[in-house]
Amino acid sequence: MSKDSSYIYENRIIPKGLLVAIGGNEDKEHDLQIFNTILSLVNKKRKSIEIITTASSYPEEAGMAYYKVFTRDSENNVGLMHISTREQASDASLLKRITTADIIFFTGGDQLRITSVLGGTPIENEILRRYEQEFCIISGTSAGASAMSKTMICGGDSREALRKGTINVSIGIGLIDNAIIDTHFIERGRFSRLMQIVSMNPSNIGIGIGEDSGIVIKGGCILKAIGRGITVILDGQHLKYTNVADIDSDEAIAIENLVIHTIVNGYGYDLCEKKYLRPYDLDRINRIESEGNSSENN
Amino acid sequence: MSKDSSYIYENRIIPKGLLVAIGGNEDKEHDLQIFNTILSLVNKKRKSIEIITTASSYPEEAGMAYYKVFTRDSENNVGLMHISTREQASDASLLKRITTADIIFFTGGDQLRITSVLGGTPIENEILRRYEQEFCIISGTSAGASAMSKTMICGGDSREALRKGTINVSIGIGLIDNAIIDTHFIERGRFSRLMQIVSMNPSNIGIGIGEDSGIVIKGGCILKAIGRGITVILDGQHLKYTNVADIDSDEAIAIENLVIHTIVNGYGYDLCEKKYLRPYDLDRINRIESEGNSSENN
Repeated sequence: MSKDSSYIYENRIIPKGLLVAIGGNEDKEHDLQIFNTILSLVNKKRKSIEIITTASSYPEEAGMAYYKVFTRDSENNVGLMHISTREQASDASLLKRITTADIIFFTGGDQLRITSVLGGTPIENEILRRYEQEFCIISGTSAGASAMSKTMICGGDSREALRKGTINVSIGIGLIDNAIIDTHFIERGRFSRLMQIVSMNPSNIGIGIGEDSGIVIKGGCILKAIGRGITVILDGQHLKYTNVADIDSDEAIAIENLVIHTIVNGYGYDLCEKKYLRPYDLDRINRIESEGNSSENN
Repeated sequence: MSKDSSYIYENRIIPKGLLVAIGGNEDKEHDLQIFNTILSLVNKKRKSIEIITTASSYPEEAGMAYYKVFTRDSENNVGLMHISTREQASDASLLKRITTADIIFFTGGDQLRITSVLGGTPIENEILRRYEQEFCIISGTSAGASAMSKTMICGGDSREALRKGTINVSIGIGLIDNAIIDTHFIERGRFSRLMQIVSMNPSNIGIGIGEDSGIVIKGGCILKAIGRGITVILDGQHLKYTNVADIDSDEAIAIENLVIHTIVNGYGYDLCEKKYLRPYDLDRINRIESEGNSSENN
């Protein structure tokens, strides 16, 4: 395989970075299951971590909570980025820190702040470039996870969410372009939000991450569940019928045949092949990968 | 067709009555869409209606609300049955009223009160007998709807409901034996409750009725949505895998391939064939039925 084509597979760029999306309200005090998983992904003793607090209305407070998590039991080099204006998102010294970070972490808050402040800025472009071209971890919780997808949910009451037009959608950072992420999913009963979105374009996969749960996405395809909660996958590919194009705003949506999965720690989903992955399947994928890596090294 | 075999189809007794299950919080003041549908099912000017308030902690109040609904704009003969003990549930005069009622309506409250007070009593037996052998309407809202199914959900927090053993299940009246009903479904985000139940035995169909929504079930099979909200159908027949038998209590449940539908006014579902029914399908079924009836009359 030539070096130039090595990121391309079936007309798709295969990103070299990893995404870790978290459903919010993750354990920050006890065994730090999710954060330990994130840290274990980087094979360095002293990791460089940048925390972006743009989503939060209380950036100092939010930043400090994650600073404590990432410095506990470690010699990591952790920086806080309280970026609240588009000017700051072009700052050269911040940009340099993004270029060298091993882990870039987005706190929760409001996903529209992330996209309206960072959208199209040098900081955002550098994050996208690094995710595509270099090994690094891009992680986010709650709003920081929702903003990862290209189509981003940014509002809508789940009690009314199976009525047409009740969910607000905007454009996210675009680290994921074949799925939509929703968070606090089980705890806030948000099934109907993703159902509306997927029914409007069944080619999208809906990913609903529960609290204290997360997913690691590798190569833009292989999704693996982490944490102690549940992630729900809504797959529209077998959808047979919906009235959504024929009804008026606020009318109730009929949907025939949406497929739903739940994945928990050890299980996964292939976003590209749209296929459920049991522990056995994930083991097989890991084996193939490590064999591939060792033959490359030979 | 002989008279004796006329209720049997594919080894199943076909009930002559109709069920109307309502998801709670139905409109009782404005256009009464759901109650007008119920009343329209009985082709009599002066209908006999009995309201059973057993589920409610405030039987007088609950009963009066529905008394007003059923007597508005009509000359109906409406009775209240405040049955709160098993003794009352054997009372001969109440039993006689059950035998002659056109519509028997269960208010909301706690479904365990319905089953613990009425279970196995002459009143319950008579309701089951009439539903099977005579044309009548058995209706209920909220707890009154949940109690209709043989397997009855009676508790469990939906935020924790995808962990094993978090949902309480008991035995309902048993008017429906191939499905489980949950209510206030969209508004309280109860998807995960039914997902747990269906994953534990995928032969069951989960029916999650939203507020101000209902379903009419005919012949024990053909379900038609009424009201202004949404009913969710969870179909486990295509379920490929679940870890539910292998995990401990309170562990998170992995589920592969649960099929979900939503039906709204004019749409339906065939509980026996496990098939989604679009308006066209329901029209066709109605046509076949009315042709059957007219040829029987000839």
